[in-house]
Amino acid sequence: MVANKEGVDWRSVCPISSALDVLGDKWSLLIVRDLLIHGTRTYSELLGSAERISTNILAARLEMLTCLHLIERTHPDASARNNAYRLTESGAALRPVLEGLGKWAQTHLKPFHSDIVRIS
Amino acid sequence: MVANKEGVDWRSVCPISSALDVLGDKWSLLIVRDLLIHGTRTYSELLGSAERISTNILAARLEMLTCLHLIERTHPDASARNNAYRLTESGAALRPVLEGLGKWAQTHLKPFHSDIVRIS
Repeated sequence: MVANKEGVDWRSVCPISSALDVLGDKWSLLIVRDLLIHGTRTYSELLGSAERISTNILAARLEMLTCLHLIERTHPDASARNNAYRLTESGAALRPVLEGLGKWAQTHLKPFHSDIVRIS
Repeated sequence: MVANKEGVDWRSVCPISSALDVLGDKWSLLIVRDLLIHGTRTYSELLGSAERISTNILAARLEMLTCLHLIERTHPDASARNNAYRLTESGAALRPVLEGLGKWAQTHLKPFHSDIVRIS
């Protein structure tokens, strides 16, 4: 169900389900978070985020996000580790979803995760 | 990283990451959608949704959502297939996230998924 050149295997016509078909994993929205909120730009910087994404997952998610036009490479000729990315308008439009997830977690996961911080 | 009686292996103190630690998969938020928007109540009804969740994934996700107090059983004594669930206040508080995902997908996934419908 990951987007690639062959397309996505959509489970239904529901927009919520379709969003999860492409973003329903533990990593894709963290890449969007890093580019949108943390000012992260390069492959190496993305690898350095606190959640410690692995290289193979990062490469696969960047390819998927690029195929769906949520991100784009800013210097397509750079070597792999120096690749830099930015969000497209479609990717940046996920801001309300990220803010909603963060606000929800601050309140409703706090009893299970006392160290949780507020979104800066 | 699935919530159970032993707890969640939180990847960081970030609330967005923490939300994805528990909800970052293709199915958990669909169960919330069904209970919140579609009026679904029972295990059997959840199995019948358009996306065709499997029994083992449904059972695991229901256990996780229950452990995190996002859902609760309305008739704890019923047999497994007749179990009925409802969202708690914490689960219902995910409505803005679901609406945000749906609105985003209606606009930004439409070029890739022409059959996508609007949220009713």
